Amino acid sequence: MSRQSNRATDARKVSQELFTLTYGALVAQLIKDYESDDEVNKQLDKMGYNIGVRIVEDFLARSNVGRCHDFRETADVIAKQGMKMYLGMSPAITNWSPAGDEFSLLLENNPLTDFVELPEKHGNLNYSNILCGVLRGALEMVQMEVKVWFTQDTLRGDNSTEIRLKFIKRLEDALPAGEE
Amino acid sequence: MSRQSNRATDARKVSQELFTLTYGALVAQLIKDYESDDEVNKQLDKMGYNIGVRIVEDFLARSNVGRCHDFRETADVIAKQGMKMYLGMSPAITNWSPAGDEFSLLLENNPLTDFVELPEKHGNLNYSNILCGVLRGALEMVQMEVKVWFTQDTLRGDNSTEIRLKFIKRLEDALPAGEE
Repeated sequence: MSRQSNRATDARKVSQELFTLTYGALVAQLIKDYESDDEVNKQLDKMGYNIGVRIVEDFLARSNVGRCHDFRETADVIAKQGMKMYLGMSPAITNWSPAGDEFSLLLENNPLTDFVELPEKHGNLNYSNILCGVLRGALEMVQMEVKVWFTQDTLRGDNSTEIRLKFIKRLEDALPAGEE
Repeated sequence: MSRQSNRATDARKVSQELFTLTYGALVAQLIKDYESDDEVNKQLDKMGYNIGVRIVEDFLARSNVGRCHDFRETADVIAKQGMKMYLGMSPAITNWSPAGDEFSLLLENNPLTDFVELPEKHGNLNYSNILCGVLRGALEMVQMEVKVWFTQDTLRGDNSTEIRLKFIKRLEDALPAGEE
């Protein structure tokens, strides 16, 4: 019910600080719960996937974006509309593979990592891994199977924060019968 | 570093949907981890407390609010500035106790509970309990000890969502030497 009343209005916003600190509490809880950073990364990706699957419908309703004709258009929609709408930032699109099936999102200001410092013993933690899952889940709902992973993270001392997306295949089978 | 660059600019925002779903993932994780709803409530309150303690500095920097002279002024600042800034909503202030040491915040649209339905077996869960902790933590940092709890929650079938705040005492001792 509240979902619908919400849908009718403009996107509501919350402060990034509150979001960042709440996400931090989530990561801290997972670190308590799981043995290894790899396992935490997996859980974050899974949670993100579930969020992406749910958020894409909201995104399509708000954005008026139609079907993308190629992966370059998809990249544009993600960077300039999706991440803008949900995270309040527009990452640069870089490092296209020659075949056009891979690109990177360069996050200049990752809102998830404000206030965050990674303890040395968590060198394998992909702190913001939930973002990979969100992208993977959202794209799957529009019939694109992609692989998404962090290639760089300023939290780990890299020069930038870079998320890589690789197109795997179109999921035509997932279309409801008769839709195309 | 990014914290400072952020501080200098206007508050950045993220979408409420993303926040709501991320918070949902946190609550779901805690439900997995702890035996009882009561224990989950406690954990949410504790996490909120830690967030409140950190967020109050950000709030004071952005809001230009000075020291409150009484609990009524505190109520106004919380409802009209704090919750507005962080959650994008201004709850009504109601149900003052005759002594003026207790009031309620009436949340018309609780952004944390969009999309949420509480399974029957979690009848004791205070799903949004993190908010109580945030208020408690933030007020403690401005030398006010308060008790904060949910008295009603639409998630549990109540007519409204109501957070009650009770003033306990001023924490004069916590002031740094020489400040007053």
